[in-house]
Amino acid sequence: MKAEDMAAWDWRDLEAVKRLKYRYMRCLDQKDWEGVRSCFTEDAQARYSAGAYAADGRDAIVEFLVRAMDRRSFLTSHRVTQPEIEFQSADRATGVWALDDVVVDLDAGVTIRGAAFYEDAYRKGADGVWRICRTGYLRIYEERFPRASLPGLELTASYWQTGGRSRIEV
Amino acid sequence: MKAEDMAAWDWRDLEAVKRLKYRYMRCLDQKDWEGVRSCFTEDAQARYSAGAYAADGRDAIVEFLVRAMDRRSFLTSHRVTQPEIEFQSADRATGVWALDDVVVDLDAGVTIRGAAFYEDAYRKGADGVWRICRTGYLRIYEERFPRASLPGLELTASYWQTGGRSRIEV
Amino acid sequence: MKAEDMAAWDWRDLEAVKRLKYRYMRCLDQKDWEGVRSCFTEDAQARYSAGAYAADGRDAIVEFLVRAMDRRSFLTSHRVTQPEIEFQSADRATGVWALDDVVVDLDAGVTIRGAAFYEDAYRKGADGVWRICRTGYLRIYEERFPRASLPGLELTASYWQTGGRSRIEV
Repeated sequence: MKAEDMAAWDWRDLEAVKRLKYRYMRCLDQKDWEGVRSCFTEDAQARYSAGAYAADGRDAIVEFLVRAMDRRSFLTSHRVTQPEIEFQSADRATGVWALDDVVVDLDAGVTIRGAAFYEDAYRKGADGVWRICRTGYLRIYEERFPRASLPGLELTASYWQTGGRSRIEV
Repeated sequence: MKAEDMAAWDWRDLEAVKRLKYRYMRCLDQKDWEGVRSCFTEDAQARYSAGAYAADGRDAIVEFLVRAMDRRSFLTSHRVTQPEIEFQSADRATGVWALDDVVVDLDAGVTIRGAAFYEDAYRKGADGVWRICRTGYLRIYEERFPRASLPGLELTASYWQTGGRSRIEV
Repeated sequence: MKAEDMAAWDWRDLEAVKRLKYRYMRCLDQKDWEGVRSCFTEDAQARYSAGAYAADGRDAIVEFLVRAMDRRSFLTSHRVTQPEIEFQSADRATGVWALDDVVVDLDAGVTIRGAAFYEDAYRKGADGVWRICRTGYLRIYEERFPRASLPGLELTASYWQTGGRSRIEV
């Protein structure tokens, strides 16, 4: 994409779309479900892992996420980087993002790691707020291993169990 | 760097340079070699790991990357963040980036992880498109381990083998 | 946040604050302590892991970091992404960032990994330079494992020991 192709864009809208996605990922990892909810349009659609997991509507998406992740023994780091945003009009945009995620599931005793590429669509409401109206990703890879396979692996801090404090000297 | 030092910069050029790098990394992980190729000037030079791997010219760079990575059993996540871009003129820029990469090599049965800092140079062509004309990185660290050392380690999704779909319940 | 809420912002200040943070993280991983030092105001305050580690003043912060990390056998990758920056005035800003970090401590024979959210404050000096005046983070998770638990784990490059060069064929 050439710089001149962005002639009609406003950098503030570009920044607003990026921040929307950043806030979404942060709320997800902090299990702030009201925050997650506020990132979507009411009619938003989600398609994860090429449609293996699908949810239609903001309520269904949040319900899906809560069911999958709302345990304090389920620690997650979802990081999105490398934004390739495009504006189709003053209130429509699409975005491609790289995702790298880590899940520490203490109940199941597994760690899951993976990478994916998100493809999103965004809509700016009459209230001037950008929201996600379509989201989905395709995995590059995903893997898991039993935490017991790594003798001496020790959790030294968690947002909920230690209030985010490390229990050890660094 | 002060904000006032950017007085002559156009945010669209800054965004275009960042997107060039993001597209390059995405095409690399998706093994889209035509996409990779389009990111370089014809005379581009690459120097990886302080010159341990060198390639001169777009053709040589793409050939090097294809030879190293064009197997569907070679799954990669290359993530660049923390851009420090500088414009030397209207059509010349340099950039420092952090890289974190993961390679899952199923044939060799190893996982490779590492971090590095990229130093790039970019040139804007007569067609208005920014391209990489020089790239290279210096490793902070790089390590590998045999995947068999982690009993129960299981690949649950891959872009090529499962079409990006997870085979398991998350 | 709406795009219109950024009406009074200058994109160059936003970029300058982001670059300040990027430069700080890079200098940290490169053990460039003068570079680290230059990122802080003289009266800067640091609170890591919800206050488990605290330092008041630029000198105390740098001394803390040097004591914790200034060994060439202590290899680190600190990556900040997902910036949510807000300007309170022309010379005051705050920022929330995601952190993902990896520490390879060859002396202790451990690898430490974790994720956190930073909360920073920034001040623009009379010289036009933005600096960090308050920083701290709260861990989502942190874990460590003995490197001997992963038979065959091998360091193949390090910034100091191999000059950033890989010793192996990739």
